[in-house]
Order: sequence, then structure tokens, then C-alpha cells
Amino acid sequence: MMTELPLDQVRTLLAAVDEGTFEAAARALSVTPSAVSQRIKALEQRTGRVLLLRSKPVRLTESGEVVVRFARQVARLEQDAAAELGLPESGEPARVSVAVNADSLATWFLPALTRIGRTGRVALELHREDEEHTTRLLRQGTVMAAVTATPAPVQGCSVRGLGRMRYRAMASPAFAERWCGGDGAIGALLRAAPVVVFDRRDDLQDRLLRELDPAGTGGGVRHHVPASESFLDAVVAGLGWGLLPELHVAARGVRGQLRDLVPGRAVEVPLYWQQWKLDSPALAELAGEVVRAAAQALGEQGVQGKQRADGA
Amino acid sequence: MMTELPLDQVRTLLAAVDEGTFEAAARALSVTPSAVSQRIKALEQRTGRVLLLRSKPVRLTESGEVVVRFARQVARLEQDAAAELGLPESGEPARVSVAVNADSLATWFLPALTRIGRTGRVALELHREDEEHTTRLLRQGTVMAAVTATPAPVQGCSVRGLGRMRYRAMASPAFAERWCGGDGAIGALLRAAPVVVFDRRDDLQDRLLRELDPAGTGGGVRHHVPASESFLDAVVAGLGWGLLPELHVAARGVRGQLRDLVPGRAVEVPLYWQQWKLDSPALAELAGEVVRAAAQALGEQGVQGKQRADGA
Repeated sequence: MMTELPLDQVRTLLAAVDEGTFEAAARALSVTPSAVSQRIKALEQRTGRVLLLRSKPVRLTESGEVVVRFARQVARLEQDAAAELGLPESGEPARVSVAVNADSLATWFLPALTRIGRTGRVALELHREDEEHTTRLLRQGTVMAAVTATPAPVQGCSVRGLGRMRYRAMASPAFAERWCGGDGAIGALLRAAPVVVFDRRDDLQDRLLRELDPAGTGGGVRHHVPASESFLDAVVAGLGWGLLPELHVAARGVRGQLRDLVPGRAVEVPLYWQQWKLDSPALAELAGEVVRAAAQALGEQGVQGKQRADGA
Repeated sequence: MMTELPLDQVRTLLAAVDEGTFEAAARALSVTPSAVSQRIKALEQRTGRVLLLRSKPVRLTESGEVVVRFARQVARLEQDAAAELGLPESGEPARVSVAVNADSLATWFLPALTRIGRTGRVALELHREDEEHTTRLLRQGTVMAAVTATPAPVQGCSVRGLGRMRYRAMASPAFAERWCGGDGAIGALLRAAPVVVFDRRDDLQDRLLRELDPAGTGGGVRHHVPASESFLDAVVAGLGWGLLPELHVAARGVRGQLRDLVPGRAVEVPLYWQQWKLDSPALAELAGEVVRAAAQALGEQGVQGKQRADGA
């Protein structure tokens, strides 16, 4: 039944979601806004479901998400088939949409995609999202693959392990002196100190505190700095302590400007690769590059971390 | 009338919005979820308006936004008054919530706030948002100040000019050779070349193309890389051309790895500082630091840009 959905109507739905409003979708498709409205209404009558909330920007209903995911998967297969048949390019390069967490994007992820992107055959569309929430974009059909924090597969997706990002509790030497130089367990000292967190959803620092100081309550001043580079800069500048990815500290060459506050103790975040279960060469190539880059970066990191813990 | 809104009900509304669900708000306030629900219902009856959409996460209605902005402004004034009276700190540091665009956060913005943050008297809460859309957070009352792209004041806010971010069309030498080495106007060459854009809303690159090649249509492959550092990394790696902030290129020391594709031509984005009109010392201090940092960074940049344009 799904394959009987008229392609122009499905494309119109996609355009409305991508562009945010009927007016913008109309411009993108070179039709009138009322044509956009009519096509979507027709698609809703055909499926017997409300697909789109007419908010600003428009939003998909759960049924709408199913249709959109279907449409994007068909587009992917269509592009693969055209490439395999050696058909002339439609002018539209294959769009590779991937959701990735900020710290991965700031460290190991980009080089893998850059290799694919430079071939000129694909257009990369990265979405930066918390690793706990990338699965939502996958479920909605916004992306065809994602770096996630969970191995539980989204429906219709396959899962592979990527390795672990290792974080260490770091601060500037002056900050460490002031807040962690006194008597007392490090957990209690850290709990009282100013801390830098990524945003409201970031509980990585709290997780460490709960491990180090399970009985403690309350906490120090919390600063929210929602960008990986600025987060690292803020910790180096002495705004607070924070959990920094070992990879990032090494890549930026700022290890000498930081103290490891809890030596030998890393917080590890396992990462997974989830992608649509489709027999698509483009997706397979993408997965290959990402898994290889992760193995190299997160593997090397593991060894470094071990050496450091042994030598510290 | 507004001041007769019971403070516990208003605080409950704030907690629901900040935490996202009634359950999380209940945990944060140490009450039951049904108490949260009752208080919000009572506040809605008192105001005669629906304040909150019971979605996941919950969302404010327009009336809800007014109440929340009012509540946050009262909290700000209360903290200022307590500080001025020399009252003992409540344990809660003053929260300074600011919306800022990604490129400002990656370049000139953070040092200004770090100085304030390190005093230990305030908790910084930065929101990273497109400069065209930071005004929305201001209007909603989510932030008390914002770096915006528009001088049109949000209701209840004052505006000051900060200067201009200057962007240049850059690419790797190999990319420049391949895509811009041939015959033809630079506008047409750039239009056909792969381009890196920040996200779907970023039309900075398109703006330059419209100026250089007004009659042109279509375009090359578009890659979306939604993080300032990764955006710069992607351009350096040769994924596409892109508009890079002069400040960022200088700070990262990658000028030697990049070609200026349109020498003497910078795209300028004027930035403004908007903040609540409140007689608040904390806000005034914040504004002072930000305006000073902007004058220094965007001023120096202006001089550099001029020298470069003259010397190129």
C-alpha cells in the first residue's frame, strides 16, 4: 500500500518538513502554497491519517514520520539504483544525513566523512545532537544513520559498536589549587566546586559525582557552555571543572594547561552506529569509513588512557 | 495584577518548562507530580489562559511565555536586591542566561563571560542559537540577553551595536585549484563548486553568491556541518568552500592552509546586543564586558581586514 503513495504528494510532504512552512516549500518546489496544502491534504485522505501539524514550523505526527522515513528510504534506493545502472546523474547528489554527538564531531568523526564528501558524489548533512537523542532523529527519518549512546536498535535499523569515548575530570592548575587543594575526599571537593556542563541535558559530570560521592547532595555553581570547543576553552580558562574527552585534549595540545583531578579514573561513554537496514552501497561505504575511523581513534585513545593510568 | 501571581505556582511553571516534564519538575521541587499539575492548573485558572501545552517535553503557549519572562525578571531583581542589601547568599548563584550565535561563541564571546563567571557569583547559562533566531529565546524569556542579527528591539529590551563579524570565502589550495582555477567569473565558478554550510538555515554563502552572480541559478553539492570548529576543519580539509570568520581563521592559525577565493571582498554580519530593560547591576556588568570584548575583537578584525584588502 505504501508504494502506492503518489510521489509528488510524498515529496511535497518532505519539502514542507524540510523547509518548515508551506510558503517556503512552495518556493522550493516552484508551485503555489495552495498546491502544497492540497497535495498534503490529499495524502492525508489517502492514508486516513493526519500527517502534519500546521504549526510554525510545521511538525510531523507519528504517522507522518513513518511516511517521511519511507520516502527518504525510497529516495536512497532510487539513487543507488541509478548509480548502479550508470544512469546520468540527476543533478542531485546523493544526500547522506547523519546525526552525531558534539564531542564525536569535534574529534574523530569528521575526517571519515570528509573522505566520502570529497568524492563529490554525496552531499553530507550532519545533525549535531546529544548522543542520547540521536535515535529520535533516526526514528523520525530525519537521518539515515546516527552515532548513538544505546545499543537498542531503532525499528528498522542495524547496530554496531564503535568503541568508547573516554572523558577525564579536568581543570586549570589555578582552579585545581583553589578548589581541590584542601582536605577531604575528591568527590566532596568536586561537588562543591563550580562545574562546566554542556547543557541542561548533560549529566556526565553528575554521573561522576554520584560515583565518587554517593551520599553527597547539593552542588557548586553550574555553567552551561553548549559547544565542544568552547566547553574545553572554558575549562582551560578556569571557569570550572569539566569532563573533557581525552581525544579532544590531545588534539588541541592543551594537556599541559590542565590538571587531571581524578587520576586513573575515566568516565567512559560507549558509542554505537545505527543505520537503516537497507542494501545501499552508499550507506555501506559510509558505515565502513565511520567504523574504521572509530576503531582507530577510540582504539588509540584506549591505549593512551591505559598508559597514562599506569604511569600517573 | 501580574504581581499577584502566587510565587510557588509561578516557580512550578518555571520548573516544568526547565525540566521538560511534570515528573522531572516534581523531582526538582521535591513535591509530587500531581502537586505540579494542580499548581499549574491553578495558575491557568487565575490568569484565565492556557499557559502550557502538555506535550513531551511540555511547551509554553504565548501567554505562558509572558508569565515565564515576568517570573525570571522578578527573580533577577530579587537577586540584585539581596546582593545590594548584603543579605546572605541564598546558596543559589545568580543565573545569567544568554543566547549567542555559534561563530561568536567560537571566537570573541567566551573570554568576556569567563571573567564574570570566575567571580563565582554567577552561573552562566549559554544558549547556542543562530543569530537570526536568538531573539526568539529573548521573547520567550528563556534568556535575559542575546547577541542578535537585528537592531529591532524585542519588546521590553534595549539594543546596542556590537560591530560586524567579517567572513571571507575560503577553501583549501587544492580545492581552489580544482574548482576556481578555470576560466569564468568567480561567482559562477563558486556557484558550481561544493559548498559547506552550517545548517539548513544558514544562507550566508548564498548571499555572497547572489551578490557575485545575480543571474545564476542552481548550485553545487551542499554539505551541512553544524559546529563552528568542524565547519572550519571541513573547509581546511577540502570538503568545500565556505565563509569563515576572519577572527576564527586567525585564532586557529590556519590562514596558511587556506586561499581567499574573493580577495578584497568580505561578507559582513552586523551584531547587536539586546537585553531586558531592567535596572540590574548584574545585567549591566555583563553588558559592559560583552560590549568591551566585542569592540576589541571586532575592532581589531576591522583593521586587519582593511590591511589585508589593501595589501592583497
